Amino acid sequence: MGYERDNIGRLAAYAPGEQPTTGASGGAGGGGVVKLNTNENPYPPCDAVLKAIAGVTGEMLRRYPQPSALRFRQVAAAVHGVTPEHIIATNGGDELLRMVIGVFCQPRGELTDTSTPSGTTAGGLAMAEPSYSLYPVLADIHNTPLLRVPLDDNFGLTADFADRVVQAGCKLAILVNPHAPSGRLESLATLRSIAATLRRGGCVLLIDEAYVDFATRDALPLVRDEALDNVLLLRTLSKGYSLAGLRFGYGIGHPRLIAALHKARDSYNVDVLAQAAATAALEHRDEARKTWEKVIAERERVTMELRGRGFVVPESQSNFVLATPPAGSRSAKEIYESLKAGNIFVRYFDQDRLRDKLRITIGTVEQNEVLLRGLEG
Amino acid sequence: MGYERDNIGRLAAYAPGEQPTTGASGGAGGGGVVKLNTNENPYPPCDAVLKAIAGVTGEMLRRYPQPSALRFRQVAAAVHGVTPEHIIATNGGDELLRMVIGVFCQPRGELTDTSTPSGTTAGGLAMAEPSYSLYPVLADIHNTPLLRVPLDDNFGLTADFADRVVQAGCKLAILVNPHAPSGRLESLATLRSIAATLRRGGCVLLIDEAYVDFATRDALPLVRDEALDNVLLLRTLSKGYSLAGLRFGYGIGHPRLIAALHKARDSYNVDVLAQAAATAALEHRDEARKTWEKVIAERERVTMELRGRGFVVPESQSNFVLATPPAGSRSAKEIYESLKAGNIFVRYFDQDRLRDKLRITIGTVEQNEVLLRGLEG
Repeated sequence: MGYERDNIGRLAAYAPGEQPTTGASGGAGGGGVVKLNTNENPYPPCDAVLKAIAGVTGEMLRRYPQPSALRFRQVAAAVHGVTPEHIIATNGGDELLRMVIGVFCQPRGELTDTSTPSGTTAGGLAMAEPSYSLYPVLADIHNTPLLRVPLDDNFGLTADFADRVVQAGCKLAILVNPHAPSGRLESLATLRSIAATLRRGGCVLLIDEAYVDFATRDALPLVRDEALDNVLLLRTLSKGYSLAGLRFGYGIGHPRLIAALHKARDSYNVDVLAQAAATAALEHRDEARKTWEKVIAERERVTMELRGRGFVVPESQSNFVLATPPAGSRSAKEIYESLKAGNIFVRYFDQDRLRDKLRITIGTVEQNEVLLRGLEG
Repeated sequence: MGYERDNIGRLAAYAPGEQPTTGASGGAGGGGVVKLNTNENPYPPCDAVLKAIAGVTGEMLRRYPQPSALRFRQVAAAVHGVTPEHIIATNGGDELLRMVIGVFCQPRGELTDTSTPSGTTAGGLAMAEPSYSLYPVLADIHNTPLLRVPLDDNFGLTADFADRVVQAGCKLAILVNPHAPSGRLESLATLRSIAATLRRGGCVLLIDEAYVDFATRDALPLVRDEALDNVLLLRTLSKGYSLAGLRFGYGIGHPRLIAALHKARDSYNVDVLAQAAATAALEHRDEARKTWEKVIAERERVTMELRGRGFVVPESQSNFVLATPPAGSRSAKEIYESLKAGNIFVRYFDQDRLRDKLRITIGTVEQNEVLLRGLEG
């Protein structure tokens, strides 16, 4: 028997994608590794980011950082057409996910609002299934109930999604858009309608826009709509800005929601180096945009190439594609293992509806070529 | 009415010490600020730390970091004579504090262990009072009950501390040692006895050693004692290693406790820059030690100087002193405000037992001279 709470004792921790310890190779894949399994941007961050990091002095490191990342929030507010009070900076998008669940969802047994329906998911979290596998882990850590609403056959939201969430008494719904792992983008009208229904049910909607930099539109119009005081967007610098190593994300939402999150975050949650680098990254967004354009062009090419080889590949608005191998060929798992043996890493999910598919991050032209050749082996 | 849980809605957020935006001055205090209010180390981190940061490439930033800070944990394990499985790296000591409460304490209503006493603090957190003001805020965020056990007149632990904690059914006790804000160091025998009693009551003991680098001994012998499987130590690089801006802390404890914490932390909680800098800081511990020696020498001198001016100053084993102005002089609050008007920042706590005192961080010789002159004004 451990000292930890029962829910922690039972917990199966989140399993991150493999991080091979040998160096990544952008080249021919001779001796190196081609890493297309964790949706990193294949291009490095821009020089301005490295310069901002180099500009952090010993004196700045010695002192506590600005507690709320004010300068970053000012720059992000200007970029997105909102105010700094609409923004919270977090230690990666993961911290924001953990915080929204902690702030809005109730641990089992805590339910205090007697007007809430008394079902087994009352007070809890709702998610569409399948989706980012971290959400259920975070719900378990907080010991809050989880409602899983299945997506339709095309990984689209069903028309009754919001009604089911409200009926179940959930306090928070998380939707990743563009969707992971399919890459599908929901329409703004769909999201707006869901937000409005959830609002009437006293439920917050977090739209996880981790991959939005590779899509044709974002959900900022919902946040700019004062009437939707229950909508939060998650952004991360991990993918679009080539800064997965930095751990920097942020939330955008109604100032009342953001204020509640600020109260619950660690006192100094983002360090002085991350604040400097993230601010520079947003100030030089056009540099990042060039990488988005290259990734998007390659995504279209890889999609076509895969389809040409008989794979089923739905349109993706993200920096990865979800590919189903042709019937009668090797299974997805066999392909995953064979690629891995050749030092080419893609993501395989051993779970319902994904077992017959591979999620492939879009790399550089050279990396994608290595992958496509590897699929023939 | 907000969307957040009631405990978050009611929460008074933690108030960090003031961070004046003008540059700190190590000099005569002419135009600059002398900042002796948040226990930062007055000396910058060593060159090896800055070099390690400069060595982080765009390629390293682009990729996710090693999830558990393995290299840092190996170095820390060697320094402390334990194994990497005894260590967890966190985003500042604050993250470890939040996590231990989340992992070991039960939110109100969750209590599942029927053998636990049913008092109002069952399942909760225990702390000695007064102490670090963040602990109660973190308890409120988690909505876990809090038992406050008063310290004796000399800020020492009372003989019945552990018995009271066990009787109240608390799952975790946090003690800061050296104590803040008094600087007092408890004996290892006292801590060992408390740990053993808590263990029999199924309660974890976290010893917050944020200031231990300035003390004559630490509590590592308790962690090396296999029988005490309920003891955790908190360390931070903020003070001893001049890296408050970096947000890097770590826990040392029994591998079973550490494993439970690893399950509950954010997937990539410490970034690649922080991992590199923290590893270099521990590898070059002798450089940091030189700053500890200078701070300790100045602490002794400032203590004597303050006593010479009629202040009551108990012996401190930390990088600050807690000073009570002489009877009949200006009040602590008046002195705090007058110093602040002269751009000299010290910490004033408007709370029981501290209202008549000032907590003064030990600075450089020059900063301390400015302070001592300021006290005469």
